[in-house]
Amino acid sequence: MYREQIKVLDCTIRDGGLINNHDFDRRFVREVYKAISAAGVDYVELGYKNSKKLFSEKEFGLWKFCEDEEINKIIGGIESKTKISVMVDIGRVDLDEIKPKNESPVDMIRVASYVKDIDKAIFMTNQLADKGYETTINIMAISRDAAIELDEAIVQIEKESKAQAVYIVDSFGFLYQEPVEALVKKFKAVLKTKEVGFHGHNNQQLAFSNTIEAIIHGANYLDATVYGIGRAAGNCPLELLIGFLKNPKFDIRPILDLISKEFIPLRDKIEWGYIIPYAIAGMMNEHPRAAMALRESKDKENYRQFYESLMNTDIE
Amino acid sequence: MYREQIKVLDCTIRDGGLINNHDFDRRFVREVYKAISAAGVDYVELGYKNSKKLFSEKEFGLWKFCEDEEINKIIGGIESKTKISVMVDIGRVDLDEIKPKNESPVDMIRVASYVKDIDKAIFMTNQLADKGYETTINIMAISRDAAIELDEAIVQIEKESKAQAVYIVDSFGFLYQEPVEALVKKFKAVLKTKEVGFHGHNNQQLAFSNTIEAIIHGANYLDATVYGIGRAAGNCPLELLIGFLKNPKFDIRPILDLISKEFIPLRDKIEWGYIIPYAIAGMMNEHPRAAMALRESKDKENYRQFYESLMNTDIE
Repeated sequence: MYREQIKVLDCTIRDGGLINNHDFDRRFVREVYKAISAAGVDYVELGYKNSKKLFSEKEFGLWKFCEDEEINKIIGGIESKTKISVMVDIGRVDLDEIKPKNESPVDMIRVASYVKDIDKAIFMTNQLADKGYETTINIMAISRDAAIELDEAIVQIEKESKAQAVYIVDSFGFLYQEPVEALVKKFKAVLKTKEVGFHGHNNQQLAFSNTIEAIIHGANYLDATVYGIGRAAGNCPLELLIGFLKNPKFDIRPILDLISKEFIPLRDKIEWGYIIPYAIAGMMNEHPRAAMALRESKDKENYRQFYESLMNTDIE
Repeated sequence: MYREQIKVLDCTIRDGGLINNHDFDRRFVREVYKAISAAGVDYVELGYKNSKKLFSEKEFGLWKFCEDEEINKIIGGIESKTKISVMVDIGRVDLDEIKPKNESPVDMIRVASYVKDIDKAIFMTNQLADKGYETTINIMAISRDAAIELDEAIVQIEKESKAQAVYIVDSFGFLYQEPVEALVKKFKAVLKTKEVGFHGHNNQQLAFSNTIEAIIHGANYLDATVYGIGRAAGNCPLELLIGFLKNPKFDIRPILDLISKEFIPLRDKIEWGYIIPYAIAGMMNEHPRAAMALRESKDKENYRQFYESLMNTDIE
């Protein structure tokens, strides 16, 4: 499935950071960066660029803020063609704090947005593009917003935003191949000047197959994480995606080593992956919030009660 | 995705038995049968019907042989509409030992066959159908045999076999949605008097999505296992399939209870699921044999070495 335009973005540290308050230590992040670079992955996303006026450094690790000087400590001395990405959330960033691209190690800034906030997302991508960054808009929770508002949002993005790509983000791990096909086709029909991206969640073990489906229909920006790490059920495993793409520019072996040495031990300390309450949340098109709370409680394996609680609270 | 003709077959004990030499104790098998029955699943497969002349009872558990009297001990006293299935392998069964259907608790006998053995499989299904059993042919390792021999085999099955369904079996966990679509369409085009089935393996986290793909294109016989248990990476998780099918005859809750109470503890004792060497074997269209041997060795987490060993031995 070789297609030159395909760009793979590893968001191991960014999405994985949602499990541990973005508190990976520098040594670990350097190991990830080294392996991602050696594997030839196009982009690596290290975290969120949140304002320290809004979040406390006592509560969150370094990758909640992704300060330029911290990124420089990670990448220093490592040979790499991999570009650096950070993510910003609407309303959690101070654009004035972001330096021009030529003073920063960051190459790309991705704006995560719900459909309702798309005006703000367009404004932010344009501000950031004017500072010299590559930008994207990542439309979250799309399985709940796939209606007329979404149609209007992508038309508006095409007309008004300088973003180079627009991502379909299946935040709840609800989609399967037919809705992915429909969404990618909808995006491709409107976004003539931009690439389409896909970011899956693995609640129902569908993140990889949904990513394949998005590729089949023309999505070229693909998110993945090492060993599928990420909030709750996690994401599309990078090793599977690289194995599938068959692009000679990728080398799976540094990723295999990284999993052996870092991710097998890490998985004993923090939890992600195929876990029944996340599967149930995915089936029901629900945010994993309630399932994450369950996994912190003594009822963590009481799946029937959790299922029934979601069934009952969801009557509107 | 409701379609009345869809039949779900749970092969938890049969495929799971490949991990532990078919040595599940009777209490556990009764718990599985009880939950599968309460969930409204159409069939449950308890193991293989192998001849005791060929395999030793000392080396294998009860479900290598599936004697009628053992099956009766499992199902006795449990209310159920679920039909009982067993599997036979070519050359490992003595057909004379199999009683007529009206003297046995077994409803269906599935014949597992490689393409090269299809003449024998047809002969066996016809013998077994004449004894009164429902029968199917399950074509294994199809990702290595998808050539002219396969085309001929399905034509011959359609003409000569009394089997009611023919399964596409992705033994190596190699397929993704495009080849699944092509195979199901090929089967449907020829098998006018029979149903098409799908049995996935989960090496690349694609068993569930491949099963969905098979459903989309008209496969009606679907295999799954509780919590995805099965040899190596395991199979399509039954709980995901039931969640997807939305058929009112199914109830996911007994399966959720069964996972909580039996499969979470079991997973600490025997291994299956998303494990990198199985993913690598799947990517390379290889039998999981070498990966299973690796997992028993001290190098179990040395993925790079395993990857390179498969790369190098595979040059022909």
